[in-house]
Amino acid sequence: MILILKKGVTQKGIKEICDKIEELGFTPHVSQGEENTIIGVIGENAIAKKEIFESFFVVGSITPISKPYKLVSREFKKEDTVVKVRNLEIGGKKIVVIAGPCSVESKGGLLEIAKIVKESGAVMLRGGAFKPRTSPYSFQGLGKKGLEYLAEARKITGLPIVTEVRDTSQMEMVSRYSDVIQIGARNMQNFDLLKEAGRSKKPVLLKRGMSARIEEFLMSAEYVLSQGNYNVILCERGIRTFEDSTRFTLDLSSVPLIKKLSHLPIIVDPSHATGKRELILPMSKAAIAAGADGLMIEVHPKPEEALSDGFQSLLPKDFQRLMKEIRGIVKTFKRSI
Amino acid sequence: MILILKKGVTQKGIKEICDKIEELGFTPHVSQGEENTIIGVIGENAIAKKEIFESFFVVGSITPISKPYKLVSREFKKEDTVVKVRNLEIGGKKIVVIAGPCSVESKGGLLEIAKIVKESGAVMLRGGAFKPRTSPYSFQGLGKKGLEYLAEARKITGLPIVTEVRDTSQMEMVSRYSDVIQIGARNMQNFDLLKEAGRSKKPVLLKRGMSARIEEFLMSAEYVLSQGNYNVILCERGIRTFEDSTRFTLDLSSVPLIKKLSHLPIIVDPSHATGKRELILPMSKAAIAAGADGLMIEVHPKPEEALSDGFQSLLPKDFQRLMKEIRGIVKTFKRSI
Amino acid sequence: MILILKKGVTQKGIKEICDKIEELGFTPHVSQGEENTIIGVIGENAIAKKEIFESFFVVGSITPISKPYKLVSREFKKEDTVVKVRNLEIGGKKIVVIAGPCSVESKGGLLEIAKIVKESGAVMLRGGAFKPRTSPYSFQGLGKKGLEYLAEARKITGLPIVTEVRDTSQMEMVSRYSDVIQIGARNMQNFDLLKEAGRSKKPVLLKRGMSARIEEFLMSAEYVLSQGNYNVILCERGIRTFEDSTRFTLDLSSVPLIKKLSHLPIIVDPSHATGKRELILPMSKAAIAAGADGLMIEVHPKPEEALSDGFQSLLPKDFQRLMKEIRGIVKTFKRSI
Amino acid sequence: MILILKKGVTQKGIKEICDKIEELGFTPHVSQGEENTIIGVIGENAIAKKEIFESFFVVGSITPISKPYKLVSREFKKEDTVVKVRNLEIGGKKIVVIAGPCSVESKGGLLEIAKIVKESGAVMLRGGAFKPRTSPYSFQGLGKKGLEYLAEARKITGLPIVTEVRDTSQMEMVSRYSDVIQIGARNMQNFDLLKEAGRSKKPVLLKRGMSARIEEFLMSAEYVLSQGNYNVILCERGIRTFEDSTRFTLDLSSVPLIKKLSHLPIIVDPSHATGKRELILPMSKAAIAAGADGLMIEVHPKPEEALSDGFQSLLPKDFQRLMKEIRGIVKTFKRSI
Repeated sequence: MILILKKGVTQKGIKEICDKIEELGFTPHVSQGEENTIIGVIGENAIAKKEIFESFFVVGSITPISKPYKLVSREFKKEDTVVKVRNLEIGGKKIVVIAGPCSVESKGGLLEIAKIVKESGAVMLRGGAFKPRTSPYSFQGLGKKGLEYLAEARKITGLPIVTEVRDTSQMEMVSRYSDVIQIGARNMQNFDLLKEAGRSKKPVLLKRGMSARIEEFLMSAEYVLSQGNYNVILCERGIRTFEDSTRFTLDLSSVPLIKKLSHLPIIVDPSHATGKRELILPMSKAAIAAGADGLMIEVHPKPEEALSDGFQSLLPKDFQRLMKEIRGIVKTFKRSI
Repeated sequence: MILILKKGVTQKGIKEICDKIEELGFTPHVSQGEENTIIGVIGENAIAKKEIFESFFVVGSITPISKPYKLVSREFKKEDTVVKVRNLEIGGKKIVVIAGPCSVESKGGLLEIAKIVKESGAVMLRGGAFKPRTSPYSFQGLGKKGLEYLAEARKITGLPIVTEVRDTSQMEMVSRYSDVIQIGARNMQNFDLLKEAGRSKKPVLLKRGMSARIEEFLMSAEYVLSQGNYNVILCERGIRTFEDSTRFTLDLSSVPLIKKLSHLPIIVDPSHATGKRELILPMSKAAIAAGADGLMIEVHPKPEEALSDGFQSLLPKDFQRLMKEIRGIVKTFKRSI
Repeated sequence: MILILKKGVTQKGIKEICDKIEELGFTPHVSQGEENTIIGVIGENAIAKKEIFESFFVVGSITPISKPYKLVSREFKKEDTVVKVRNLEIGGKKIVVIAGPCSVESKGGLLEIAKIVKESGAVMLRGGAFKPRTSPYSFQGLGKKGLEYLAEARKITGLPIVTEVRDTSQMEMVSRYSDVIQIGARNMQNFDLLKEAGRSKKPVLLKRGMSARIEEFLMSAEYVLSQGNYNVILCERGIRTFEDSTRFTLDLSSVPLIKKLSHLPIIVDPSHATGKRELILPMSKAAIAAGADGLMIEVHPKPEEALSDGFQSLLPKDFQRLMKEIRGIVKTFKRSI
Repeated sequence: MILILKKGVTQKGIKEICDKIEELGFTPHVSQGEENTIIGVIGENAIAKKEIFESFFVVGSITPISKPYKLVSREFKKEDTVVKVRNLEIGGKKIVVIAGPCSVESKGGLLEIAKIVKESGAVMLRGGAFKPRTSPYSFQGLGKKGLEYLAEARKITGLPIVTEVRDTSQMEMVSRYSDVIQIGARNMQNFDLLKEAGRSKKPVLLKRGMSARIEEFLMSAEYVLSQGNYNVILCERGIRTFEDSTRFTLDLSSVPLIKKLSHLPIIVDPSHATGKRELILPMSKAAIAAGADGLMIEVHPKPEEALSDGFQSLLPKDFQRLMKEIRGIVKTFKRSI
């Protein structure tokens, strides 16, 4: 249930009503937009107490939220959410390109890629320090060392960094180093991790699970928001289907659909979705045409030597070309880069 | 196996080698490109007879085709196939928009829609006369009457028409009326129908089956080509997955992938794929960005009264807007309309 | 809508009410059970005419059918349908095992297999004369010759035969030879073929499409029944999923679910579903435990030489063992063999 | 790579070779069977060092393991693993039935169900204290209180207990209370949790992820074994497909396939898989027929009041009937209960 407050409501008025909400056993979520201040009243069957809230002077009107996700829904917040990461804005007019290697493998290697992607126009650096791997015998990431290398790459290039956290026990450490906390596809329904990410102050990049329906994806985002962290960037990265000529099936329809259902920004990862280098450029263009707010691209100078996912990494020159082509089309879609 | 003939080979030389191919129990498929004449030698284990063919003077070189589909593959034919339908070219520089109602419901209604879509810039008219319907009690299409109405709509608007054939017994009749024969998703592996379409002289619009892998899709096209009909237009229309917020999952990655594997043109049907009116515009743009050669869109002046698929049909004004927006983006992708 | 007639109603009474049903624009389907005679009134919004039918003296009570499939539903007919094929009953107490090669390849080969499966206890012979094959260059079946061989195998062994019809144009010929007409998975939504099968007098074995939901499966059966042919045997043969260690995913839950929703018998084909020889025995047992009325098993004396699907065919000795083990468990499930 | 040691090898001999393995940078996994002692040499490209190991006197023979999972594979260990939980054996001749409520909701309620399922013949009690829920606003489980209630139910009934751990931070606490640690479907690729479970001394019940291929399922089990915990019970609980008439699609073929690929015991959870009360009995029988070592069943005295998954819980009387019917069939499959 949403309370839309009357214009001119004071901070004191907002506090009073929030206290009342808590007194009644619900959780208040305040959203102060340019035009309106609204308060989400979250909890089971809040609508039953509608009359009590109607009697408050500062409450202008009350609407139920029809969807199971509340804070995440367009009903709760009409304007697009713009997530700020240092100087960067995700979900605004600019298309955001995040690039880097699948895993952080060495300091030298990471710095090399970081410079390359920055020169080509990427605005954020990605790289895995804690890698989720199907086999216990595969390279699992450099852990803390990887985070340090990422921080150094940020220092040198100025690019904010995003890296995955695989477990609640890593959250504190990853938050300390990273600008954005990534929650991977395999952890999309790791609810303790989502709550922990919600309690951190860092923006969260949440990847869609490989068998997650869109409603479940948004419910997982709701976990983060429900803890008071409203800075969630969604990421479509393909779903698992019977089609085996691509690694996953990139579900681009999810982009305009989620834009309609939610105010959160959504980016697309064509590298993991397709698993095929030659499909990354066309699917990047398609993602932008579908309305995505950004891209997440794997780049590696020697993909054949990469410790993970080499076959789907772009070569620096291919990434350069991708950036050039993307730059050529964004204006058509009323975006900039 | 492909025989690339030496430049300057005569028709007589081609005939001689074709006779030899048949004598050895294989089927020859001749493709005369601007630069080369090549002959596909189709049949099991043709490669075993490689030496015999190498001994022919007119044979320049021989390459095996590594894929299970032969005539359909890029290996067989490097240049894009452009399918001609009256004055129209599909697979060339121009993006082709095919529009019309799901089913032909009445003469007046069809003519009304035909005029609308023509005015907005569609270049071909679609409409079902033989409708495949899940229930035996649902409207099954007007049959021959529907074909007559389509022919009349063509006469008035000048738009070539495409309509579905559901069974071999309808092929002769549908071929007589329609410019393009559509084979629907549910019939993608109706192999007798594919062969019959191959024997007809008409261009074929082949829709991807809802559970067809890309290789199977191309193998079904191979059925048509194997009968000597090289004019096949592929159509991606979504695959069946667990995601239930769209009717199917539009697999746009198939577009650049098929472009790489095959020389055939491919268009996209966002209406059936998404089943949601509001997703048709963004997914149409995404389809073009991904490299599709055209779109197939359902339009109905009163979708709520349509006898089938109303909920996914665009209103005339929405179609007009779609054409306007598409027109605005094609140049960016080095296409025209 | 179903009319349950009063006990003791005469044939004349039945005819009168059927005439009335037709007069009102609906189609009557009469089902004379041991206890009751009921008439299905099929057509859109039949329930609106409920009052007219209530006024008839012979009508005892009227119930709507809540499902989209009508004649196929348990609501229409409470008792299990037992399909008779010569002396055989499918859907009764006996578990029915249908066995034979994937394709009919030669007369000698077929007769050899026919004798083997008969000796082991199979009660019907399967074998494809018209094979649906992914590739146009694969063996497509012997056609009419295959049908003749099957008829000869029947003559010698006494086993009734079941073989697939791929296209309406083959229906007349296949009906002439075969005891049961099989409609394959790829044709489950070939609606013209379903109707044609409905018009034939032969029992129909309808295989579930590889991407068909259970409701769609039952709707396809409804096509056959709607034409007056009530002898349909359903066959679960696996659905297409992301799991690639089996050819398809055998959906055994469909067996008890369909038993609840429909009165039609259902058998299971573990050969095509699993595509793995070693899984056929355990999944055959599981099918019977789940309530299936029979099994359809591929047997080939030299699977490695089979022209299709050899890798999933049982060797004669394995089939013998399967029959022995099945015989050992049927009593536990209150069935016989 | 596996080293099969010569008969009569001493503990000292085993230690020496293990030291050598570690010295070379690999991890030794010793398995002392009744006939043989074998050592798994785990690590990348161990086979390259084959000659070094061949030179050891105690090494009888060496075989590579062809699968990506090593310790989990039948190649590594031929005999079925029997997991011991207090007096119970899972994976032996006896079919094991685990039953209880979806969530622990109250002490009284749990004790009531525990007594009921014990009386009916269940040998282990299940119940969630930490529940993974799609919505942050749904009941998330009683946490520590729930564990205490479970421990009390064990004390009273003597039934060992199994309960889910959702996050590494809960592992220590859950291990202290529970006899078996359950890792849920959504956490099947939570690799840190798997490793933590591997380091605990408790048997682990690992549920298949809803989009996990069988190889991935076994790789996740390998994570647990690779940490030295060989007591893993696998659980098939349905995969996500397009079929929506059941909650998931129970993939029973996985049971005999996994039995072939791995030595680990596997049980089946028909409650979560089907999501339909009326399918639990037939699918339980089918699971046993397919070779499952046990069942996991949800029971609730008032399903309509359950805080989670009520619609798929059996009533006590239905569970009693299920146990009776299961008891009636196990002998047929050479099992007891």
